[in-house]
Amino acid sequence: MTTPSRSDIIARLINPRSIAVIGASADFAKVSGRPLKHLIGKGYEGRILPVNPKYPEIAGLTCYPSIEALPEAADLAIVAVPASDVLKNVEALGKRGIRAVVIFSSGFSEMGAAGKAMEEALTEKANALGMVVCGPNCLGFINAFSNVYATFSQYADGPTGAGPIAFVTQSGAFGTAIAALVRQRGLGLGYFINTGNEADVSFAELMMAVIEDPRVRVAAGYLEGLENGDELVRLARRCQELKKPLVLTKVGRMASGVRAAASHTGALAVTDTVFDAVIRQFGVLRARNEEQMLDMLEALAGPRIATGNGLGIATQSGGAGVMMADRAEEVGLTVPTLAPSTQAKLATVMPAFGAAGNPVDVTGEFVARPELLTESVVALLDDPNVHIAIVWLQLMTAHVDKLVRIFTEIRDRTSKPFFVCWVAAPAEALQRLRELNITVFTAGERAVEAAAALARYHAFLRQAAGAAPSPALPATGLPDLITEGVQPTALATEWLSKAGIPMAPAALARNADEAIKLWRTYAAPVALKIESPDITHKSDIGGVLLNLNDEQAVRNGFQTVMKRAADKEPEAELQGVIVQAMSRGHIELVVGVQRDPVFGMVVMAGLGGVLVEVLKDVAFRRAPFDVAEGERMLRELRMTALLDGVRGQSGVDRHAIASMLSTLSRWAAAMEPVLAELDLNPVLVGSSGPVAVDCVMVFREKAGTNPPDKLQSKTREGNEHAHQKRLFETR
Amino acid sequence: MTTPSRSDIIARLINPRSIAVIGASADFAKVSGRPLKHLIGKGYEGRILPVNPKYPEIAGLTCYPSIEALPEAADLAIVAVPASDVLKNVEALGKRGIRAVVIFSSGFSEMGAAGKAMEEALTEKANALGMVVCGPNCLGFINAFSNVYATFSQYADGPTGAGPIAFVTQSGAFGTAIAALVRQRGLGLGYFINTGNEADVSFAELMMAVIEDPRVRVAAGYLEGLENGDELVRLARRCQELKKPLVLTKVGRMASGVRAAASHTGALAVTDTVFDAVIRQFGVLRARNEEQMLDMLEALAGPRIATGNGLGIATQSGGAGVMMADRAEEVGLTVPTLAPSTQAKLATVMPAFGAAGNPVDVTGEFVARPELLTESVVALLDDPNVHIAIVWLQLMTAHVDKLVRIFTEIRDRTSKPFFVCWVAAPAEALQRLRELNITVFTAGERAVEAAAALARYHAFLRQAAGAAPSPALPATGLPDLITEGVQPTALATEWLSKAGIPMAPAALARNADEAIKLWRTYAAPVALKIESPDITHKSDIGGVLLNLNDEQAVRNGFQTVMKRAADKEPEAELQGVIVQAMSRGHIELVVGVQRDPVFGMVVMAGLGGVLVEVLKDVAFRRAPFDVAEGERMLRELRMTALLDGVRGQSGVDRHAIASMLSTLSRWAAAMEPVLAELDLNPVLVGSSGPVAVDCVMVFREKAGTNPPDKLQSKTREGNEHAHQKRLFETR
Repeated sequence: MTTPSRSDIIARLINPRSIAVIGASADFAKVSGRPLKHLIGKGYEGRILPVNPKYPEIAGLTCYPSIEALPEAADLAIVAVPASDVLKNVEALGKRGIRAVVIFSSGFSEMGAAGKAMEEALTEKANALGMVVCGPNCLGFINAFSNVYATFSQYADGPTGAGPIAFVTQSGAFGTAIAALVRQRGLGLGYFINTGNEADVSFAELMMAVIEDPRVRVAAGYLEGLENGDELVRLARRCQELKKPLVLTKVGRMASGVRAAASHTGALAVTDTVFDAVIRQFGVLRARNEEQMLDMLEALAGPRIATGNGLGIATQSGGAGVMMADRAEEVGLTVPTLAPSTQAKLATVMPAFGAAGNPVDVTGEFVARPELLTESVVALLDDPNVHIAIVWLQLMTAHVDKLVRIFTEIRDRTSKPFFVCWVAAPAEALQRLRELNITVFTAGERAVEAAAALARYHAFLRQAAGAAPSPALPATGLPDLITEGVQPTALATEWLSKAGIPMAPAALARNADEAIKLWRTYAAPVALKIESPDITHKSDIGGVLLNLNDEQAVRNGFQTVMKRAADKEPEAELQGVIVQAMSRGHIELVVGVQRDPVFGMVVMAGLGGVLVEVLKDVAFRRAPFDVAEGERMLRELRMTALLDGVRGQSGVDRHAIASMLSTLSRWAAAMEPVLAELDLNPVLVGSSGPVAVDCVMVFREKAGTNPPDKLQSKTREGNEHAHQKRLFETR
Repeated sequence: MTTPSRSDIIARLINPRSIAVIGASADFAKVSGRPLKHLIGKGYEGRILPVNPKYPEIAGLTCYPSIEALPEAADLAIVAVPASDVLKNVEALGKRGIRAVVIFSSGFSEMGAAGKAMEEALTEKANALGMVVCGPNCLGFINAFSNVYATFSQYADGPTGAGPIAFVTQSGAFGTAIAALVRQRGLGLGYFINTGNEADVSFAELMMAVIEDPRVRVAAGYLEGLENGDELVRLARRCQELKKPLVLTKVGRMASGVRAAASHTGALAVTDTVFDAVIRQFGVLRARNEEQMLDMLEALAGPRIATGNGLGIATQSGGAGVMMADRAEEVGLTVPTLAPSTQAKLATVMPAFGAAGNPVDVTGEFVARPELLTESVVALLDDPNVHIAIVWLQLMTAHVDKLVRIFTEIRDRTSKPFFVCWVAAPAEALQRLRELNITVFTAGERAVEAAAALARYHAFLRQAAGAAPSPALPATGLPDLITEGVQPTALATEWLSKAGIPMAPAALARNADEAIKLWRTYAAPVALKIESPDITHKSDIGGVLLNLNDEQAVRNGFQTVMKRAADKEPEAELQGVIVQAMSRGHIELVVGVQRDPVFGMVVMAGLGGVLVEVLKDVAFRRAPFDVAEGERMLRELRMTALLDGVRGQSGVDRHAIASMLSTLSRWAAAMEPVLAELDLNPVLVGSSGPVAVDCVMVFREKAGTNPPDKLQSKTREGNEHAHQKRLFETR
């Protein structure tokens, strides 16, 4: 027998043929009894193997006195014993040949240093024995397709019929609430998994396993922290291949929330802005809270494809139409003017006091004339500019039958997605429509947001299908032996220029004559900047002179800059003065590369010079990315319109900037082993494209021939914050 | 008998002692039968007087053959007859001495020109007869306190028990949906009023009537358009006096929505930004949609006062705590660190794995130890920095009794407001808590938003209580006879200076010698600007020269500016050149006064020079306002931090800018009869405070000795848009 791979073990963990319950209780109200209750009660067809020396049998099942006494190496063991007994049980399980364990027990890393040490010992032991551990401190999981109830969650107490949604949650309590809300909506969970402390198996690994199940159509996750960005990116890519949307809610968006997250969960608080940007880059939909998650799941669970972002609205209330049109504009949908043929069709069915535009106001008249509603919505969905439709109505308690017939007919006569938004709907109406696979919401703005998510998801799939495969990363052109810390400006400029990044020409002058020679070479006005590994804020000490364009000025300038630096920073090593050709450009960008503690090399672009700091108008992407992604990045900036020219200023070439960003991202990815950070600030953009006029490149400590292993997370996060701060300071 | 005032008639309309139903039907399913059904069925105690020649009696009530035959001049008549018969019925009612009418009939201004003409005739007739008309094209209204069902709304079909909320809606269909949602939440409507076309009585007039009812504690309104801003401001002020919160939802926030509003409702689409700013200025809470409205109503219906914006959070899930803390920060609440005494108290009750910070994580342990939850929340609410608390939990289907007891005890032991947020709550739990007047939500972010609304409302009441009464408006110092259109720069500068607005000194030079003389007077570098009523964009034709500081430069400059203007605009009347002392300031504001079609004189302030256009970073206030309001205005700007200094720039005096805005607002209010618009762009702000360095003042057409009456709305709106556009252009 070959040793199964980790992913094989995880696949078996979520779909076991036999389950041992360690510490099983005959009291089904107890944590250690509840899995048995549900496994038996809900009809698990595999073998159930309770282990507890106290009982010879539980509910007719043979109960084994010890792990050693188990008749087989079960595919999965549930461990529900006190924390202090977990390690020895896991060891016994491993020795009995059991490879997958879910541990309910709390009292580990969530309980301070002693607990943390115990958790580390647990992970080490499990890994040594080739085992996979889910938890500890988790509610366990449900595989509703196979009636696997390896959980003590309250959620299992109600009906848990399987459906197309797989839900993995880092939080037990919040996750249980979300699962219950999914049930309330009549959507089914195929999988419900609580990952707990993730001592071993992670959120992404478990999600990666469940999305392979062909019965799963949509993946939903609740996150509080994330250690491994690569795993999440791999998961997102696999979801994209499978064309299964992944919806994530992650708490900890703001400073106060991050503080709370740090104190509550101990999870690493990934910088939210980067998380948000990177998951969008890879087609993951982010839901800001549980309600929006449910709305997105409801929209995405349907089979229909939105081939564009045009929203058609049919409503019984003009005001509701206005509200939805407003929201549509805010969330990136259009509310297109209808084609003349559609307008003509609508004119034949509409009452005189209705409105045949978009939104279509069918008024309450459809109660008397059902065809009014049917034909209006069909016409709307037939319009070439409409890709998704929402029908808004309210109450109509007396007309549920009629309306269910109308919506069924609309469903049967159309192929584009449409949502019913039924405010203050009779419960019966919601249930019947959902049984007919008709997507239904109960609030207009939420229906619009869900439509936008659907459109965005399908747009991403189209975009991803059209993208060229990414070429191999470039050679970095670095020498074999490099030093850590701030790199010499002239070298950094040279490397970046060779990599294809537009840099203002710059070289080091060690004396005034060299400076004059460089000025002559450039045949243009020059800037002089002090060069020292010890001076970061050159401007602050008067170490920068601009626009020098005659021999005397350059000569004097060199002396001035050197003298000022020597006076202000007597300890600093002064290597000379950087002579740089002045560049022009009426738009100022800030561009940078950061090493994100979770996602690795990340490129940042911002607009607005001094205002970058005030407005935080920056966009991030994980490196590497293509030019189209660079263009999307620019469009994300709030001040993006500046690039097109305002108040008579000429616009600039977005493609050229995007191309610079993409080139930089590929270089940054290749530099992953050594690069700590890079700031190009400012990058000036004029009619001839972007050019970086300042550059600070920092290599990692202990970098070079001997790249370090994964850094300690805390340190990395600290570095990253210091870096961000620095980006926003003047030099 | 004295003639009753309009407000007396409206007060009687909503609380009539007798109701005539014109066109009453014995078929209670019909629009004209439904009011009778509910008046009888729900126990209206006044006299019901059906009028229809077809029946001698309906449901035991005498039915009168004609209006003339009515035995009394009923306090209210319901008119439910075809549109073409409305006018003659109203006339007959007026002659019979009936002063208040609600007209259900549609087919008026919502149906095009003919309908509009009919509606105007109706209004004219009613006014001539001293009558008040609600509608037409409305669902009518309910006064649930007195069982007045002058409506055919579906809402009346269910239970309509009276409660503390008065709801007035311009939309019938959407309004009915909102009323039904209020009922679903277990909140009661005291009044439900649909205003329809508002041919006569307006939204604000009806709301003004209902808020006087002492049983009403909260007012809620749904708006699609607004003609009369003064009325709304009066309403807001009255609500403030009565300490009754007013919550408004208005659709038409975005361009697409406004377009839809224009086509659907015909209502005037008030510029939403101004609406939003003005209602906030007067303490009105805006709910962006019906769900947020309900959340706010739920929070505001309680009696407890939030004396600050500190939010305490107790939760069963760390993640939910993080999410709520995040949202709190976004909506203006703080999540304060707890006082040491609170932390000590929490430490004594908390389990080791909980968290005693804020959020407090009580974990699920409270099921076993109820005092854990009770004592934690009481300690939280006792903390001096906590002004409102939210307790988050989920499911707990088996523990409803226990939790209801816990929350009742918390209620009894505390006086600060607290909300329960119970996700996926059993329906029974929600109902029981609401019966105990314990405010309960079902989603964390929504609970936080509602808490923010409560805190904001009470902060407004405190602020309004502390504000000094506004002094009389200043004299404008205008001559008796003034001309319409663009005013001469020198005069405008003089008037504004006299009014106390800091203006860069400027005067007209008709020749070069006068220009030189002015330069000598100012003893400072000057700007020269062409002066012509026909040239708005002075820079575009080279009509502006800056920083001239010697005699020859000023002389040449004068000639240059005059020649360029003559060459580029040969038809323009050139009055000379404005000579203006140059001002300094590193921050650029744009300040303006606009005549809003709905709210009248409105002051605008923006930041960011060229970026004002890109970011639309502007704030509005209705004139006049005090300095504190000016400061709030500045704090609203997204780039407000610029005023405090960034990247080593020094900060500026916010009070001085706010004072300028306040002075300008009082001058603008005094200038209401004549001022069309004023732009001060830019206003430079440096260490010595703000100074306006350009000024365009426009008086209204036909202004002056003979101020025009209310302008046609459409025209006013057109003007206003043109003006806004102009503000964003360079001169």
